[in-house]
Amino acid sequence: MAVARIAVVAGDGIGTEVTAEARKVIEAVLPGVAWQEYDLGARLYHRTGEVLPASVRDELAGHDAILLGAIGDPTVPPGVLERGLLLRLRFDFDQYVNLRPSRLWPGTISPLAGVKPGEIDMVVVREGTEGLYVGAGGVLHRDTPAEIATEESLNTRHGVERVVRDAFARAQRRERRHLTLVHKTNVLTHAGGLWARTFQAVAAEFPGVTTEYQHIDAASMFMVSNPQRYDVIVTDNLFGDILTDVAAAVTGGIGMAASGSVNPERAFPSTFEPVHGSAPDIAGQGIADPAAAILSGALLLEHIGHADLARRVSDAVAAEVAARTPGTPLRTAEVGDRVAAAAA
Amino acid sequence: MAVARIAVVAGDGIGTEVTAEARKVIEAVLPGVAWQEYDLGARLYHRTGEVLPASVRDELAGHDAILLGAIGDPTVPPGVLERGLLLRLRFDFDQYVNLRPSRLWPGTISPLAGVKPGEIDMVVVREGTEGLYVGAGGVLHRDTPAEIATEESLNTRHGVERVVRDAFARAQRRERRHLTLVHKTNVLTHAGGLWARTFQAVAAEFPGVTTEYQHIDAASMFMVSNPQRYDVIVTDNLFGDILTDVAAAVTGGIGMAASGSVNPERAFPSTFEPVHGSAPDIAGQGIADPAAAILSGALLLEHIGHADLARRVSDAVAAEVAARTPGTPLRTAEVGDRVAAAAA
Ligand SMILES: CC(C)[C@H](C(=O)O)[C@@H](O)C(=O)O
Ligand SMILES: CC(C)[C@H](C(=O)O)[C@@H](O)C(=O)O
Repeated sequence: MAVARIAVVAGDGIGTEVTAEARKVIEAVLPGVAWQEYDLGARLYHRTGEVLPASVRDELAGHDAILLGAIGDPTVPPGVLERGLLLRLRFDFDQYVNLRPSRLWPGTISPLAGVKPGEIDMVVVREGTEGLYVGAGGVLHRDTPAEIATEESLNTRHGVERVVRDAFARAQRRERRHLTLVHKTNVLTHAGGLWARTFQAVAAEFPGVTTEYQHIDAASMFMVSNPQRYDVIVTDNLFGDILTDVAAAVTGGIGMAASGSVNPERAFPSTFEPVHGSAPDIAGQGIADPAAAILSGALLLEHIGHADLARRVSDAVAAEVAARTPGTPLRTAEVGDRVAAAAA
Repeated sequence: MAVARIAVVAGDGIGTEVTAEARKVIEAVLPGVAWQEYDLGARLYHRTGEVLPASVRDELAGHDAILLGAIGDPTVPPGVLERGLLLRLRFDFDQYVNLRPSRLWPGTISPLAGVKPGEIDMVVVREGTEGLYVGAGGVLHRDTPAEIATEESLNTRHGVERVVRDAFARAQRRERRHLTLVHKTNVLTHAGGLWARTFQAVAAEFPGVTTEYQHIDAASMFMVSNPQRYDVIVTDNLFGDILTDVAAAVTGGIGMAASGSVNPERAFPSTFEPVHGSAPDIAGQGIADPAAAILSGALLLEHIGHADLARRVSDAVAAEVAARTPGTPLRTAEVGDRVAAAAA
């Protein structure tokens, strides 16, 4: 029997290139995985008009995890692949914990003056199944002066409580044991109230975790002026989307930003993918940095119960990145080879 | 007859201190203003339970502009003063252009390594009367496991078109003539579609302005990795709230961040205020930096038809800031005195 069943959705652009390296590294540390590749993304859409065929969705559901590269192409209208595939997986597979660690790794350079490797080490726990991402809304009187468009943010106690509890549990396992709730309670008083009250209620279960609250605008500013202050952050779907990109920027860009869309109960497969996109401009040249994809592979390993292997992989990535000579172009496959060799 | 009628809402915390200096500077360059002070904010709320009495609102409506300090105090529940006063003014007075210039001034230090004064010079045109700020939404089954909370973003062609046109007109008057639309069209397809189609339609009226589109997450990242690229940005109410705080952070914090909530037709008074808050921790000590408040006064002068005086004031602020000795504490009133003397 296979040690794990992993579906690979390499996707568009550099997605195929970086995912190959993530798979190579996982194979090196965990032999015996049953791999299954699925050709989804812009190619399938253009060939068949389909984004996620029901049969593929059902097959994906039978896997332990999904290793995803990048989805998206300028030739496809905005929203089609994002809503039809990426968000569809998050919603259908109840991936309510969108995990986004941000560290300033040795060898990477922050755009922030005077901030040194090791000083930034946080994880954003972004809600993944609610909020403005549910797609509720519509358009009336399109292309007339009377046009209106709405978007509705839907938030449940159920959905907020489970992600908040997950964030508290993560904070408790970390050294600093600090959790920041980010929202906009002074304007979004309805949803903000639900988040704030739920946060307070769950906090009572975790007396060892210190807490604070920040508005999203203030948090975005502190993410630049003082990112060192953060340990674990919990926030809603849209705020998490924005805040994690600022976090990626201050830790040297999306080159090292990994993510997991996680169903912690493992009732459904979780998806692991780099935060970066398909980068059509450099696709096919073998020069994309696979570090974020490989680190996403490490998150995958941790999720399926191999925290030790995950640590070996992320240490190997850290060492590879630290050993790079700034200015020297990299080859995608060589990075994967070096990390695989070091981690094996 | 007075040269202008300006209402002063100094507000809470350091609001009173910094607004006094902004007024001092305006008086120095434009004698003959009829000033009227209104005591609104946490004090009034605690004394009377009122936030914006109808009579005060009506009096404010008769002014040319409102000079505002800061509203907000930890002793007041979140949303009460924000929704009841700040947002109320924006909505009642149809202040649909929320203007937020960001410049890296000489003498200020960006947290970004290697970015030099003069290199960042942008203005964010944030929509001020629609989107998620309208307050539509509610809570059901509060404090039970069945609780849900909603927030609705309402967007009209009318509201989007007028702010987009204003942004294009501003871009056309600037040297680089570049306008970036920021939204999240790949997820918020309804509202995003309205914004994108309206932007394209209005662009046809401004052939001299180059345009681009970015998702809010990407824009927040570029705001850190390459803020120099931006000239004018137009975006919705919530995205503008977040993005302008990142812009303030990369230009050295909110110490210099001015803003105007503008009704361009001058059918209603516009409000001018620093982006910073009431800072209760340093209030009453006379050490708050009034630069952002004075620069907001410059925006006010420009709005009421005195572009030349506005320029003199902002040049005087720039000179005062450039002449500061880093590490030396400042005195609020002395900064105001120096700027007033230099600008007069
Ligand atoms: C592609 C898009 C739908 C997605 C999101 O907004 O969640 C991406 O930005 C991300 O952060 O994973
Ligand atoms: C205080 C708050 C209501 C306000 C906003 O969100 O608009 C503030 O953050 C701002 O940017 O002016």
